[in-house]
Amino acid sequence: MMHSYQSFAVIGGDLRQAHVANQLAAQGKTVYALLLETNEALHRTLICEKTPGEILPLCDAVVFPLPLTADDEFVSAPFSARRVRVADCLSVLRPGAAVFAGKISPEMHALAEQFDVEMIDYLEREELAVKNAVITAEGAVAIAMEELPIALFGSRCLIVGHGRIARALIRILRGMGASVTVAARSYGSLAEIEAEGCRAVRTDALKTSVKAADVVINTVPARMLTEPVLSALKHDALVIDLASRPGGVDLAAAGRLGVKTIWALSLPGKTAPITAGEIILHTIENCLSELEEAV
Amino acid sequence: MMHSYQSFAVIGGDLRQAHVANQLAAQGKTVYALLLETNEALHRTLICEKTPGEILPLCDAVVFPLPLTADDEFVSAPFSARRVRVADCLSVLRPGAAVFAGKISPEMHALAEQFDVEMIDYLEREELAVKNAVITAEGAVAIAMEELPIALFGSRCLIVGHGRIARALIRILRGMGASVTVAARSYGSLAEIEAEGCRAVRTDALKTSVKAADVVINTVPARMLTEPVLSALKHDALVIDLASRPGGVDLAAAGRLGVKTIWALSLPGKTAPITAGEIILHTIENCLSELEEAV
Amino acid sequence: MMHSYQSFAVIGGDLRQAHVANQLAAQGKTVYALLLETNEALHRTLICEKTPGEILPLCDAVVFPLPLTADDEFVSAPFSARRVRVADCLSVLRPGAAVFAGKISPEMHALAEQFDVEMIDYLEREELAVKNAVITAEGAVAIAMEELPIALFGSRCLIVGHGRIARALIRILRGMGASVTVAARSYGSLAEIEAEGCRAVRTDALKTSVKAADVVINTVPARMLTEPVLSALKHDALVIDLASRPGGVDLAAAGRLGVKTIWALSLPGKTAPITAGEIILHTIENCLSELEEAV
Amino acid sequence: MMHSYQSFAVIGGDLRQAHVANQLAAQGKTVYALLLETNEALHRTLICEKTPGEILPLCDAVVFPLPLTADDEFVSAPFSARRVRVADCLSVLRPGAAVFAGKISPEMHALAEQFDVEMIDYLEREELAVKNAVITAEGAVAIAMEELPIALFGSRCLIVGHGRIARALIRILRGMGASVTVAARSYGSLAEIEAEGCRAVRTDALKTSVKAADVVINTVPARMLTEPVLSALKHDALVIDLASRPGGVDLAAAGRLGVKTIWALSLPGKTAPITAGEIILHTIENCLSELEEAV
Repeated sequence: MMHSYQSFAVIGGDLRQAHVANQLAAQGKTVYALLLETNEALHRTLICEKTPGEILPLCDAVVFPLPLTADDEFVSAPFSARRVRVADCLSVLRPGAAVFAGKISPEMHALAEQFDVEMIDYLEREELAVKNAVITAEGAVAIAMEELPIALFGSRCLIVGHGRIARALIRILRGMGASVTVAARSYGSLAEIEAEGCRAVRTDALKTSVKAADVVINTVPARMLTEPVLSALKHDALVIDLASRPGGVDLAAAGRLGVKTIWALSLPGKTAPITAGEIILHTIENCLSELEEAV
Repeated sequence: MMHSYQSFAVIGGDLRQAHVANQLAAQGKTVYALLLETNEALHRTLICEKTPGEILPLCDAVVFPLPLTADDEFVSAPFSARRVRVADCLSVLRPGAAVFAGKISPEMHALAEQFDVEMIDYLEREELAVKNAVITAEGAVAIAMEELPIALFGSRCLIVGHGRIARALIRILRGMGASVTVAARSYGSLAEIEAEGCRAVRTDALKTSVKAADVVINTVPARMLTEPVLSALKHDALVIDLASRPGGVDLAAAGRLGVKTIWALSLPGKTAPITAGEIILHTIENCLSELEEAV
Repeated sequence: MMHSYQSFAVIGGDLRQAHVANQLAAQGKTVYALLLETNEALHRTLICEKTPGEILPLCDAVVFPLPLTADDEFVSAPFSARRVRVADCLSVLRPGAAVFAGKISPEMHALAEQFDVEMIDYLEREELAVKNAVITAEGAVAIAMEELPIALFGSRCLIVGHGRIARALIRILRGMGASVTVAARSYGSLAEIEAEGCRAVRTDALKTSVKAADVVINTVPARMLTEPVLSALKHDALVIDLASRPGGVDLAAAGRLGVKTIWALSLPGKTAPITAGEIILHTIENCLSELEEAV
Repeated sequence: MMHSYQSFAVIGGDLRQAHVANQLAAQGKTVYALLLETNEALHRTLICEKTPGEILPLCDAVVFPLPLTADDEFVSAPFSARRVRVADCLSVLRPGAAVFAGKISPEMHALAEQFDVEMIDYLEREELAVKNAVITAEGAVAIAMEELPIALFGSRCLIVGHGRIARALIRILRGMGASVTVAARSYGSLAEIEAEGCRAVRTDALKTSVKAADVVINTVPARMLTEPVLSALKHDALVIDLASRPGGVDLAAAGRLGVKTIWALSLPGKTAPITAGEIILHTIENCLSELEEAV
């Protein structure tokens, strides 16, 4: 985890990026926090009012937010009154600087290439995905606890899908004494689910499996909870959808059927922003170590 | 769990008692729900507008609320416009009827004795205490998730005390990947804490042990978190107090020191009322079985 | 799990195949058990003394052992005095029969192709690998309990590698209260290890990580425990190698250094043969279902 | 855990006492190991060939074995050719010395009183009982793994009783993926069993509950597994009895019925003697701290 990068610019973003800036400073690095002026978690001494053109040429590494930009033009900066173009940052980078951003669109990757800059997308990193899955699972459980009039202990939870989030959910829900069923497609996944102590069912039998569930948590980015499945639910069952757009639940059908559905997106940044920032920081540190090892 | 009691009066209470009434009816019992008129969870068909004097003489068993009464005179009935004296219920009971209530004061026990009635306090039952502890622990974890800007995964949790609630907390928090330390007094408890996979510390060293904690959950009904202990906490640590009155935290000191403290009482009825009702029902069923076995 | 195959030949093998035959018969299938005469677990009524040439043409499905053959010529049959060539079986199969075997060599696959037979290798199936990993992990823990003069509770276990067996080991050892460290290569695996509640170390730092270990369990099929690593172990540490040939431990160095090493191969068939047979049976049933679905 | 006792005699016993002596020496204490000459685990430098009369007057604390004596006369000393009377030790102790032994009979307590010596029985200490229960549970699981031809994963385990050993068994067996049922008497215990994630059954229904079990582990020191219960077992079920004499299984009936039964006594000293010694040492250290605090 050792690397020799000393000066960092952190540009834009939210509480997560503020935490990255704070932590880098606590490690003794030189940190310039731009476009984060109104984020109260940011240590006041780190606020940098200068322009990217003045600061970026000084930095060994630059940390852009997650997402990098909402409009493929300006850096995402909800905690700043300033508006700065991504292009205006990329054009002034110090040669050889390490550049990080989250959820980089193909357009932005193409833009970076024009400036001969290689931007590393930390959202693509496996270690970040694993840790974010853990926080996402926690957030989903918090929603279930908040919404259900029953305890999770003794409740029947159905998880759809068996990826990283599902595995984190299994650990939490089993620790809470829930009865956990997981739906998956392949025989290999079904065997793993049983090995992890849960009941395994096939996704093509969801219509039957949902009948007993008190809560259904979907983790699959595909339309799993169709009208026939939703109509088989108990009337007071809760559905939590963790799938990114377009989501795993037929919301129109859920509305018609009166199925209580919560579509929870981007949980890590919302429910545990400091931990989410820490995860980004560790991921960036791993990348910096790799960059140095590769030299 | 078999017993032959057929007709039940459920008088007063909240969602928990409404659930008891609903479940008894679902089992085919004759159920009269009094003083629950405005509780929307109660099945409409069970609402009974008659007086206790008309209904109680007909019943094999009578279920009073938890607490039985707030003023040692009237039955607790937040979901009714009617006011009924406990004495006016006890005076009309059928001889030999089984009578249940929660948190019966010495005054109310004395009153029952005047009417030659033995009231069973379901709050005193071990099985209810165990199951309520599980829900209380869930509720405390939900509060921690709600309040903390960090994930519980990887967080440092300090539990004060090692009774039923603490053991339930251990299971949940370890399943979530928290690092759990438990403070207890006796060497036997310290050994059990280690056997359950946690770090054990002595309560007389709390001042040192709290230093690293992200969240402290007190389960001991005594002033454990005194000013010296509170002042050793990290500035952003969260304290959750589950101890009944007078509570385990010096709230005045916490206020002075700016320690975020949440005093959470009676969690089962608030966070999982349906499960809490189910627990009351099972406990009553156990009592009824025992009453019949004893005959 | 439904299929319509009715008549089965089970040829050769050990207790696992005997269990497959017994279970198929218990399901009401017609079962011919060949080359298993002296296996005492086989129900006596299933013993078939006829030749493959007489039996195989009658069967919907044929189950060969694991491994299919030790010499690329004769069917493995330690519980029979008879010797039967694989070729002499393949030549008489009923057209369209489903054919299963374990650990099929390229030579045997080529032979099957000559007879226009598609042999399915159940050892290649993901669900069998997952379940066998669970039994292998159990067997490794049994060895550690047998060999160590200390309890696993509180012991320091180092697992090398983070595949299926390692994940099963983690579940078991953590349930036993061991302190578990896992060595892996990628940042993604390291994150998963932490998500599963263990300490994660990099395999390139094994020489340091092994120092504290009471027991080291290698699951990586590569020479991980080299002389420098072995010489860093505590003098009373135990090494269990689960890697298939050529194994993960430099046995010559271990001998020189006096490191107690146990190379445990093919644990499922040895420590839990009945469960291993059940796993084979379920895998074959999955394959039969897939064959029918594909039609 | 701090105390100021400096000189220790360790007299008699087995590998556990040898480990106590080794560890005390490693802490820098002055240690005289008597009647342990042939125990190979004892560091050679600690062997003391002098008589108790020469050594004991020099010592701040004296550690007798577990059990103290097998015949109420001589110190248990299987690793010595010498025979020494307990009385001849008690008569020469330094006034105020701390004296420890395990399983002290009323006769031996009376003898100590004659010499005005207070012997502390470390076997009576709660922390030792808790930790020994953990090792006993491990040992029982090792036996089950050794004896059963099936994996514990997926097996049906019935634990009779819900004390310390049972709770340790639950943690281990659930971590291994067994399906665990626990039989207990009180409604409170039944609720705790469910809170710990297991199925709870009443001990008075054992005859029914044992039917599905692959392995039954008795922890209750009473005749729980009577002939009617044993005859309801599956023919290949395994019974492990952890109850001290006279044991919890009707062995004669088990013999008649052909039920495989293993009566496993004193597991800690047998399966994990070093850990068992460590537990004794920690317990003695706790006692020494208490003795000093009390002054």
